[in-house]
Amino acid sequence: MAKISPLKEDFPEMPAIEGVQFSVAHSGTRYNKNDLLLVTFTENTVAAGVYTKSLTRSAPVDWCKKQLKWQYRNKENVRALLVNAGNANAFTGHKGLEAVEQQCGHLAQIMGCFKEQIFVASTGVIGQFLPVDDITKHYENMYQNCSQDGLWQDAVKATETTDTFSKGACLQIELNGTNVTLNAFAKGSGMIAPDMATMLAWLFTDAQIEAKILQQMVEECVETSFNAITVDSDTSTSDTLMAFATQKANNNKIVDDKSTDYSVLKAAVEKLLIKLAQLVVKDGEGATKFIEVNISGAVSNRSAKIIAKSIANSPLVKTAIAGEDANWGRVVMAIGKAGEPADRDLLNISFGGVKVAEKGLAIEDYDEEPIAEHLKGQDIVIDVSLGLGDGEASMWTCDLTHEYISINADYRS
Amino acid sequence: MAKISPLKEDFPEMPAIEGVQFSVAHSGTRYNKNDLLLVTFTENTVAAGVYTKSLTRSAPVDWCKKQLKWQYRNKENVRALLVNAGNANAFTGHKGLEAVEQQCGHLAQIMGCFKEQIFVASTGVIGQFLPVDDITKHYENMYQNCSQDGLWQDAVKATETTDTFSKGACLQIELNGTNVTLNAFAKGSGMIAPDMATMLAWLFTDAQIEAKILQQMVEECVETSFNAITVDSDTSTSDTLMAFATQKANNNKIVDDKSTDYSVLKAAVEKLLIKLAQLVVKDGEGATKFIEVNISGAVSNRSAKIIAKSIANSPLVKTAIAGEDANWGRVVMAIGKAGEPADRDLLNISFGGVKVAEKGLAIEDYDEEPIAEHLKGQDIVIDVSLGLGDGEASMWTCDLTHEYISINADYRS
Repeated sequence: MAKISPLKEDFPEMPAIEGVQFSVAHSGTRYNKNDLLLVTFTENTVAAGVYTKSLTRSAPVDWCKKQLKWQYRNKENVRALLVNAGNANAFTGHKGLEAVEQQCGHLAQIMGCFKEQIFVASTGVIGQFLPVDDITKHYENMYQNCSQDGLWQDAVKATETTDTFSKGACLQIELNGTNVTLNAFAKGSGMIAPDMATMLAWLFTDAQIEAKILQQMVEECVETSFNAITVDSDTSTSDTLMAFATQKANNNKIVDDKSTDYSVLKAAVEKLLIKLAQLVVKDGEGATKFIEVNISGAVSNRSAKIIAKSIANSPLVKTAIAGEDANWGRVVMAIGKAGEPADRDLLNISFGGVKVAEKGLAIEDYDEEPIAEHLKGQDIVIDVSLGLGDGEASMWTCDLTHEYISINADYRS
Repeated sequence: MAKISPLKEDFPEMPAIEGVQFSVAHSGTRYNKNDLLLVTFTENTVAAGVYTKSLTRSAPVDWCKKQLKWQYRNKENVRALLVNAGNANAFTGHKGLEAVEQQCGHLAQIMGCFKEQIFVASTGVIGQFLPVDDITKHYENMYQNCSQDGLWQDAVKATETTDTFSKGACLQIELNGTNVTLNAFAKGSGMIAPDMATMLAWLFTDAQIEAKILQQMVEECVETSFNAITVDSDTSTSDTLMAFATQKANNNKIVDDKSTDYSVLKAAVEKLLIKLAQLVVKDGEGATKFIEVNISGAVSNRSAKIIAKSIANSPLVKTAIAGEDANWGRVVMAIGKAGEPADRDLLNISFGGVKVAEKGLAIEDYDEEPIAEHLKGQDIVIDVSLGLGDGEASMWTCDLTHEYISINADYRS
């Protein structure tokens, strides 16, 4: 069992969301804890989702992508979300997809809906067939036990594998004077061989919003949240982020992206997703420090993002931070290898707001003390200005420590 | 001081090469060992070179690229190579280039040649100004001491920083009945903060060959040698590979790429560079296992290379090998994230020649014993066949161990 991350944050108290009910269960297939989650939705709930771009993605991801399109095409709504932990149902061929169909078909019969109205997420070992019957036999009871007033932390716990703490965030906002609630939680970033890095995240709201508009909002927000984090540059076969809106709040239904309500809700969604994404990093394998990389002055935002990612993924930068070493030379190296426009002789680099290099030269005799102090802390900030244009981007990552090696190498399957 | 790599290979005995003389010296600026190398060349020697693509490359790299063009343009030849270890002269702005000019100007005066006929390589700390005078004051003596009969291992040792063993390779071949000798050595892959990963490699031959043809040959060979290795995905600011041909052998001068002699010499150059590149990996930080990744069945060679690199750079794959775990799930993950055409349901994966997954499914009840035996060894082979086309590529890398973290994080600058 991995040590609890020193960057752990407490799970927030989350209010009920009208139209969202859930229950958990213990399948007995792998863990000594609850490993099944069922979330059911009131009839008018709409869903949005973004998924891993991996070409070796799991069967549940294939299923979700397909049914999201089906729901939009047929103007049907989402009725349930099924999650199991312990088996990712990835790299399982046609049997994998058959297992998902069996799960959803079984629940659809219980609930009296189409199986296409049910989404599935699986996380855990890959390459092993899902023990479907051992899972579906719990659905009847789980459905009976569903409640709007359960503890949200119980829900996320049932989705966890090697996570060292539960990751959630919530917000209550006003849309033109009407209260709207948003709850979100995520699992991921702790891994032990032979499990995969699997990041799963869900957001629930009672807001009234059209499905396609919700989808657009989530796609826009993911770029600055989950697509702005990296633990070890390895992309999961199962990454899934879904949002569900039950339409139970009293706000005027959001039907386009031009309204103030769209902007206000989007700001809240983005805030929540950034928080969740950062929590995933804070539960990154072996993490002892949370690192924010800010790039400015790039030729475009896209270019800034690539450079930020090159720094955030560099093992040499990440080990330097683990060693509390203001090794800006490694930052320079990571900028250089990114392949994006950069002029060595215009670079400015700061650690914790203190400049260490200016216009491509080390600042001689800079005050090392505040930097040493900053690097001893848990929240590290690296700012790079390229001096070329207005492009900017941020990435979040964690340091690379012995514990990462222990978690991933010292274990034999 | 890092432990000597368990993958160490002995330095070969290398014969003299007519037209190549060298000497070493101790600058006293950083190390308790010789850290300066001067190689001088007979008048008709031609040079070829390939350099890091980093946009934050060092001043010596900028210099070499410029002078190689100058020599071609002016039909002048190379007269000397200067190397210093301990300071990379990188990220040093205009002063860095001035330092290189001073080095070459000083030696040019001693030798009676143009400074443009001299190449420079520097490796070590970045962001510190080169102590030029402490280095150039040794040149007069070094020039006097130059000899054709020195020990080549002494030469490479003077270029090393945190290397744990000296890396060299040589070949004697016949070109149409005439003997030709090729010696090559490289430094690199050991790093301690705040040093950079710097890979420097040189090849010397007495072959008669035109400069541009030598350049073409080196560029062709680098793709399957130095561009086919990775230790930690971080690209140096100083990577340099140069070849020098003294024209002293009796072969018919190679003036185009169509002749048999071209093919024979190229095969020898490629063999040497692959050997050197593999030795650099074997001295990779913390390496305990040498990993060969072979991709076949990709849509193109280029696509195969990208997929091979994705596997070879994956921290999860590299830690799995360190843990002697045949974790093909992580190989699947790394294929998926590469972004190149791949069909999950056509993938075959083998460890040490034993198939563990076929057509996208784990092989049930495969014989684990030969695989476990293979993974206990030092030479690991991962074969992936994609089943899409004829594209193939190989990459070499090493495992990712605690020692890598120790070398790069446990040290404070």
